[in-house]
Amino acid sequence: MKTLLENVRNNAPLVHFITNYVTVNDVANIMLACGGSPIMSDEISDVEDITSICNATVLNIGTLNKNTIESMIAAGKKANALGHPVILDPVGAGASKLRTKTTFELLEKVKFTVIRGNISEIKTVYSGSGSTKGVDADVADVITEDNLAETVKFAKELSKTTGAIIAITGAIDIIADQEHAFAIRNGVPMMSRITGTGCMLDGVIAGYVAANADDKLKAVAAAVAAEGLCGEIAAQKVEDEGSGTSSFRMHLIDAMSNLDGEMLKNDAKIEEL
Amino acid sequence: MKTLLENVRNNAPLVHFITNYVTVNDVANIMLACGGSPIMSDEISDVEDITSICNATVLNIGTLNKNTIESMIAAGKKANALGHPVILDPVGAGASKLRTKTTFELLEKVKFTVIRGNISEIKTVYSGSGSTKGVDADVADVITEDNLAETVKFAKELSKTTGAIIAITGAIDIIADQEHAFAIRNGVPMMSRITGTGCMLDGVIAGYVAANADDKLKAVAAAVAAEGLCGEIAAQKVEDEGSGTSSFRMHLIDAMSNLDGEMLKNDAKIEEL
Amino acid sequence: MKTLLENVRNNAPLVHFITNYVTVNDVANIMLACGGSPIMSDEISDVEDITSICNATVLNIGTLNKNTIESMIAAGKKANALGHPVILDPVGAGASKLRTKTTFELLEKVKFTVIRGNISEIKTVYSGSGSTKGVDADVADVITEDNLAETVKFAKELSKTTGAIIAITGAIDIIADQEHAFAIRNGVPMMSRITGTGCMLDGVIAGYVAANADDKLKAVAAAVAAEGLCGEIAAQKVEDEGSGTSSFRMHLIDAMSNLDGEMLKNDAKIEEL
Repeated sequence: MKTLLENVRNNAPLVHFITNYVTVNDVANIMLACGGSPIMSDEISDVEDITSICNATVLNIGTLNKNTIESMIAAGKKANALGHPVILDPVGAGASKLRTKTTFELLEKVKFTVIRGNISEIKTVYSGSGSTKGVDADVADVITEDNLAETVKFAKELSKTTGAIIAITGAIDIIADQEHAFAIRNGVPMMSRITGTGCMLDGVIAGYVAANADDKLKAVAAAVAAEGLCGEIAAQKVEDEGSGTSSFRMHLIDAMSNLDGEMLKNDAKIEEL
Repeated sequence: MKTLLENVRNNAPLVHFITNYVTVNDVANIMLACGGSPIMSDEISDVEDITSICNATVLNIGTLNKNTIESMIAAGKKANALGHPVILDPVGAGASKLRTKTTFELLEKVKFTVIRGNISEIKTVYSGSGSTKGVDADVADVITEDNLAETVKFAKELSKTTGAIIAITGAIDIIADQEHAFAIRNGVPMMSRITGTGCMLDGVIAGYVAANADDKLKAVAAAVAAEGLCGEIAAQKVEDEGSGTSSFRMHLIDAMSNLDGEMLKNDAKIEEL
Repeated sequence: MKTLLENVRNNAPLVHFITNYVTVNDVANIMLACGGSPIMSDEISDVEDITSICNATVLNIGTLNKNTIESMIAAGKKANALGHPVILDPVGAGASKLRTKTTFELLEKVKFTVIRGNISEIKTVYSGSGSTKGVDADVADVITEDNLAETVKFAKELSKTTGAIIAITGAIDIIADQEHAFAIRNGVPMMSRITGTGCMLDGVIAGYVAANADDKLKAVAAAVAAEGLCGEIAAQKVEDEGSGTSSFRMHLIDAMSNLDGEMLKNDAKIEEL
């Protein structure tokens, strides 16, 4: 854990984002806070150049439009050609036809290193991944200790069909490739009372994966634990102050800017399953 | 007041926003803070699906462009067809031909539940609403205790021609339908020293109206009082700390995340006129 | 210095921004904090009207796209026709073909009052400004006390070919027109650990230049010193609190909202070279 974090601070990975305009400022700031550096660009005639000078690419469909879909495909293909990690966040997949269709189109045209979403979004990804149908019904809509085993099986199967590391985030987070899986129990409920914790995590994951190419699965687990741990630190401050959700957002990014390898090693709650 | 707020927290209304990219993050965060949930989508091929799964729709023309105008009309019509409340914020109406023209086009094609703006924007709305001309000259540019009666008359008349609840925000806020009106005296001057208090209020109004369909006029008044009250709490913190406008923004959203029905009932300064 | 700041607070200049969606909220808030007022508009059919009612225009290519490039040219030409100051921030010029080409196109079609960027961006501007080639090799990539003289010579030459005041920001900031130059030694390293300090500075510069038309060079120097000084105040608070980068961002804007002429006069570290 310690080294995984320190590699981010030492290598300062540059990450290209095509992401939504709601949370983009928080994403840029947490990227800097964790030790990386962000560049946002979504114009079709700009994205391939920007992807080329970066170390990783994040495609987040939170506020997609016709132009940015085209740009996501171009940037994703370029990153694939260069062997850079590409992270997909299928925000709202399943909630509208366009979001679902775009998710499927991206899965078809781009090879992803990591796919991160909540269980509902990941189930939609699954439904379009060419996996045997019928699994949806078997996976619950909320991850609990009781359905952990089924969810892990589902995530491993999706990893097989997509070739990507699957990160399902929620009260318990599941990180899986085809063979291994981790459950992460960091984080606090207040993380869902602000916008952007998922989008921010996309960036942190991109930074950790770019800086730790030799152990991508553990890098994703470390990134997820890191943000969860920052959430815990922030929630404690909010409680001490009697403040609220906007202070929580600030303390979360503050905590990421101060997090070091020792803290992550000691307080990450990562269990191999 | 108490029940109006609690209905928002208990029903957690989902609100679709087509809004400007300047204040969108604050809007999303205050929406969550007040008890609702935001979805932003402005792509024409996405907005009808998103409006359909939401409980209310906000159209804010702060950074409009050709594509989003088309999307606003489509989302507004869909919300009308479904009987969902639709809120219009005509940001900058009167300041440019496009903003004025777009406001008029939206008024023609979409039936609004609430129209919220400052007095200057609302006067522009009035000039395009089909009302008898000539009233503009009669309404002052700043609402004061001295011209309250005229402003209320103007707001009621505009409500008649548009069918919408009219919310004119300023040092004193006026909320009116065709028959009833409220003056709200919460709020502090520092609210105009940060960007986004108006846009955030659009969201809070949408949440309160969606969760209180039986008494929309009082719901709008409660939302306006709630944000004003949060401004008062935040200003007190800024004074105690000797901090500044960015801290004010944070404390405002913090206060919304902590506001409960009892506080709103006790401290809302709402007068029926 | 004192009067330069007070003119901003007294005249409350209205600034039109065509800027990136990453930092736009911070830009709007610091514009208000320093005493001005922001309007964001990037739709081609809106920008000329908005530029016309404003006192200055900022063109920032951070997240440019085909539509906003066209809008920047239209707004810039309109501002030129009206004699309003226009500020260029060539974000990422040199990092992609589109950004470099757009910078050159803007330089060709719009006359800028101020061009602000880091040394790398300004060198790209230079390469397209029609200056004798070959200077690039002579200017270092980081401004230090050792290469100050060469950098100043370079900035003055670029000012000659562009007609603009050149603001090169970094650990030491250089402000130059064709004949005079200032070095500014305010600011702290943490300013580069958050996104947006450059974009925010564009706005502050626009406000200072609009409110101080008689002494634009000193106005730019004052704006740069003002933001650097706010960075120093914010860094001190972060150290006292043991907080982090997100708190730093808040304290920076807070400091700008509280900065007065006396403080700027006493603590600006501006040296004429």
